[in-house]
Amino acid sequence: MANVYTALATPNIAFVKYWGKRDGKLNLPNNSSISMTLSEEKLNTTTSVAFSAKLTEDVMFINGERQDIASPAAAEKSKFIQDILSLMKERAGMREHALVVSQNSFPTGSGIASSASGAAALSFLLANALKLDMQQKEISVIARRISGSACRSMYGGLVKWQRGELDDGSDSYAFQIADKDHWPELMDIVAIVDPGKKKVSSSEGHALTMKTSELYEARPRTAERHASAIEDAIKRRDFNEMAYNIMKDSNNMHATMLDTWPPIMYLTDVSREIIYSVHELNTAAGENIAAYTFDAGSNAHIITTEKHEKDVMDMLKGMEAVRNIISARQGDGPRMLGDGDALITPEFLRLKGLEI
Amino acid sequence: MANVYTALATPNIAFVKYWGKRDGKLNLPNNSSISMTLSEEKLNTTTSVAFSAKLTEDVMFINGERQDIASPAAAEKSKFIQDILSLMKERAGMREHALVVSQNSFPTGSGIASSASGAAALSFLLANALKLDMQQKEISVIARRISGSACRSMYGGLVKWQRGELDDGSDSYAFQIADKDHWPELMDIVAIVDPGKKKVSSSEGHALTMKTSELYEARPRTAERHASAIEDAIKRRDFNEMAYNIMKDSNNMHATMLDTWPPIMYLTDVSREIIYSVHELNTAAGENIAAYTFDAGSNAHIITTEKHEKDVMDMLKGMEAVRNIISARQGDGPRMLGDGDALITPEFLRLKGLEI
Repeated sequence: MANVYTALATPNIAFVKYWGKRDGKLNLPNNSSISMTLSEEKLNTTTSVAFSAKLTEDVMFINGERQDIASPAAAEKSKFIQDILSLMKERAGMREHALVVSQNSFPTGSGIASSASGAAALSFLLANALKLDMQQKEISVIARRISGSACRSMYGGLVKWQRGELDDGSDSYAFQIADKDHWPELMDIVAIVDPGKKKVSSSEGHALTMKTSELYEARPRTAERHASAIEDAIKRRDFNEMAYNIMKDSNNMHATMLDTWPPIMYLTDVSREIIYSVHELNTAAGENIAAYTFDAGSNAHIITTEKHEKDVMDMLKGMEAVRNIISARQGDGPRMLGDGDALITPEFLRLKGLEI
Repeated sequence: MANVYTALATPNIAFVKYWGKRDGKLNLPNNSSISMTLSEEKLNTTTSVAFSAKLTEDVMFINGERQDIASPAAAEKSKFIQDILSLMKERAGMREHALVVSQNSFPTGSGIASSASGAAALSFLLANALKLDMQQKEISVIARRISGSACRSMYGGLVKWQRGELDDGSDSYAFQIADKDHWPELMDIVAIVDPGKKKVSSSEGHALTMKTSELYEARPRTAERHASAIEDAIKRRDFNEMAYNIMKDSNNMHATMLDTWPPIMYLTDVSREIIYSVHELNTAAGENIAAYTFDAGSNAHIITTEKHEKDVMDMLKGMEAVRNIISARQGDGPRMLGDGDALITPEFLRLKGLEI
């Protein structure tokens, strides 16, 4: 059996959102964004790879399901994974085909996007397994091309994805603002709520409808302002200021979405209840002790500090529509795992009828 | 008993919204707006006035409740009504005090704002009762000062409130784009839904928080664009084009509200259901046959034409959260009523212990 390499990466929660691309093929954003890479206890993607002359094509499994990455009927995204795979193998002079097996450990139906951790795990894994001499920022460019915000999962702690100016995207990469020890008290409390109907996927929203928003013209510079303010606040560990800008940016992105045609609306009655409750909590405290932020989905992320974890938990526990609560801290970014964690095992190969 | 004068006015539904003032005292808007004045069967305000030397001060009742308009503790808005009353009496050389009695005929708990019809009825009534030689556009300026959008209720049919440029507000008045006979098929189907919690009044929103929106800078010129497009579409009776701009403007205003600090959120899960359903209806029809629009409240207004009334009704009837449906057509604007409709009657005076 061929050598198996395994890596793990985790999702990130955006403090400043990525919404609107200046290049859809390269995933080049209209604005910089900032996020916190989450700790791995509950939310992570593990990916294994092996290269073998016994394979007749590159093969990929996600959560046990074989993916069509090579046929003409494959989804754009899947074809793109094949492109990245081919590109990195070529760079390493690897002629054998790859078997990639990826598994997300997210709670079933949590509605948390696995694309960032998945793309980060794959990029990091390939760079290491193929012994490519790549800087982390180069790997983040690969991850970005697979799934924009994945580039931020290439680092632990608090991370900025700078917009960049170049048309080839080489300066649109992520870097670490601070590692997790800089501000270890930070937490992301994720309230999992019923998803309801989601009418537009986030990728469609990015690519097709964003330009129809008449307010969008003000979004990129607004997001840059939030990003600068948050970067400064992180350096000073100023939670009050950071929280304000996190909430402002979430509202700003969802406002822009509402203004697109047709409108995109992710905020529900539960979201409104959470938003108003966080405002009440902060008003009662006399400063911002918690910040809500919503991605393109129904779950709420409440950013807070250890000191106020209980306040946030008590607030959420009173809400009927909250089905589950997951607490995460800052993570370390992607790392290689040992053989004990490999997903490509003799049993897996037997089950799938594969030989490597 | 002194002479009693009585007038009636109706609310209007904005096709382009008024949100954001350049002068809060004069109610001068940042953008022009357009509305349809509603017919009077179900939604109207009737107001009576009498002047009498037997009164020791100006007295006002709204829906049977005495209003404090003169004491130092009176609300700003009430004091302002007193100012307008004093000003118009002075202009007419009227030395006697006024008794004003106003009644809204809106269904209880309908959550439909009565401020526009109330202010329009009062301004129109005073101008007529005091025999002031005022042009209708001058009266609309008075109505505007009491409650911004009331100036649009000074005319029947389809009405534009032009922003104006002057600091004194004399060119910020309403005029009729077309009377109700130009496009008689137009309807407003109002879906009354549970209001839920309303955390910020529309007046507070206008005055205090609008400036905190980082997207707001794009709102005034966007609204002007919608207003021009709708004015043109009205002239051509182009429902498809008008409907598009009505929906765009509603979403645009609510997006701006969401972006203010703290965020203002009037759209609920029911609103989202209605929005998506109207989009489905229009997609199925291959053109816009209905347009949703939401004010600063939970009710939905569906603008459509007679031909598609049933489609809209069927759509709304399937929704559990819709408590009541009111259909309105275009109205004629304010008019004087006869003695039989007077609200100041011997019985009323006896009940309230007043003499005139």
